Amino acid sequence: MATHRFDPNFTNNVINAMGPKTEPRFRKLMAGLIQHVHDFARENELTVDEWMAGVKLLNWAGQMSDNVRNEGQLVCDVIGLESLVDEITFKLAEEAADAPTATAILGPFFRADTPFRNNGDSIVVTSAKGGEMAFMHGQVMDFVTKKPLVGATVEVWQASTNGLYEQQDPEQIEFNLRGKFRTDEEGHYSFYCLRPTPYPVPYDGPAGKLLQLMDRHPFRPAHIHIIATYEGYRPLTTQIFDRKDPYLTNDSVFAVKDSLIVDFVPRQGDPQAGLELTYDVRLARA
Amino acid sequence: MATHRFDPNFTNNVINAMGPKTEPRFRKLMAGLIQHVHDFARENELTVDEWMAGVKLLNWAGQMSDNVRNEGQLVCDVIGLESLVDEITFKLAEEAADAPTATAILGPFFRADTPFRNNGDSIVVTSAKGGEMAFMHGQVMDFVTKKPLVGATVEVWQASTNGLYEQQDPEQIEFNLRGKFRTDEEGHYSFYCLRPTPYPVPYDGPAGKLLQLMDRHPFRPAHIHIIATYEGYRPLTTQIFDRKDPYLTNDSVFAVKDSLIVDFVPRQGDPQAGLELTYDVRLARA
Repeated sequence: MATHRFDPNFTNNVINAMGPKTEPRFRKLMAGLIQHVHDFARENELTVDEWMAGVKLLNWAGQMSDNVRNEGQLVCDVIGLESLVDEITFKLAEEAADAPTATAILGPFFRADTPFRNNGDSIVVTSAKGGEMAFMHGQVMDFVTKKPLVGATVEVWQASTNGLYEQQDPEQIEFNLRGKFRTDEEGHYSFYCLRPTPYPVPYDGPAGKLLQLMDRHPFRPAHIHIIATYEGYRPLTTQIFDRKDPYLTNDSVFAVKDSLIVDFVPRQGDPQAGLELTYDVRLARA
Repeated sequence: MATHRFDPNFTNNVINAMGPKTEPRFRKLMAGLIQHVHDFARENELTVDEWMAGVKLLNWAGQMSDNVRNEGQLVCDVIGLESLVDEITFKLAEEAADAPTATAILGPFFRADTPFRNNGDSIVVTSAKGGEMAFMHGQVMDFVTKKPLVGATVEVWQASTNGLYEQQDPEQIEFNLRGKFRTDEEGHYSFYCLRPTPYPVPYDGPAGKLLQLMDRHPFRPAHIHIIATYEGYRPLTTQIFDRKDPYLTNDSVFAVKDSLIVDFVPRQGDPQAGLELTYDVRLARA
């Protein structure tokens, strides 16, 4: 390892300072973290001022975080870490041959107390300025047998056209643009929603400062969050992205995967919606 | 780089998302940081729960930090980062042939408003339980010519035997165990102090939690902080360590360098002190 000109024993000394009672997985993680952080410092000949600027930024993230905002998470998101951890999780599940639909990050706007609605209902309770209505529907099925799963839960949430989720926006009625649906006798779910629109992640804190310094925009491509669950099956958390979105190739948190891109198509003869989206979900046994 | 089985383009995509207006040094640092953080996640197949535990710990560090405590700094210290950055700084200065005495970290207990005392005075204003008195003295000189520097400033500070610096301890008189001295006509400084004693870094926060999980103790070996300055010369920040200290080889913040280890020797015929320490300081022209 020591191809640099600094003390060749320093990093090993720090790693080997861990005592015998260190839990093995924690030891592995800390050893890897210490090695990488030290290599980063040496390779870049990090100065005291640069290191201190980093410390200040991380402290600022903690100070800004509370019950409704996790700025430390957002800092990780803008350097791609949450999406990478999601990809690792997905890849390992895929190798175990049990993750049928690509996963995506949960994000900070999920609500555990979202109510059920009936199939065919609209989640657009507060009208959204400039919003395009879409009819979204699909079938939940067993990944292997393709048999429909009757009574499976499909939970969805999306931001409004102003870029805000209902809990961020006093103008939206509670639970606007979110709902849970139960699949019918053929495994189908359906509801009306908005064609999603892009929005910026909060950029008034350290994550925004990093984006600015990296000369990057804060926008996320338009997406709908989905969690599908069925007893005896592995729950699935994902996001689907509109193929026509201008930020599809430069998501500020790098969550887009090809298999999650969908097409909204014109819908004829429905006074409630001019667009339609078909999206099937395949779940794997637990 | 891509010897792993995850998306080989993911990390480059994140790095290349930086726009053309990114400041070049910042781009280099962020590219290195993103590469190392991603490599760390892939090599260890980091799970969502493990990543979230890290986010929580960093947010906690920020929430605990204020004007008198920098927990983000302390978290870096216990994984050796501040000492490594100091070593890098020292090495670069040494290569430029202008850093005569090894440096060490400043630490969080420096005070900018420390008063001058007279040579031969004692910095032990509040008596310290179980403390051993020492007479510390030496010469400040030009690194190259060895000529004494007359009127140079030597500033020192140390913790008391209870492990606390005066600003942490309501029982100590203000500026106890700290002082500034001006070298005399022969470049000499001198004062009475305590033989330093080991003390733990604060361990009621995330840094302490990390130490506990790594099965490590929080103790720093006994040391005295020194800053020496002289007009037209580069200021020197260092710490000196007592060779007899039991924590010399396992400092919780890894600040010990061989060249900073000193010997307290018996002192005869001085009713004020049973120990003596000679420590010369060599300064380099700016």
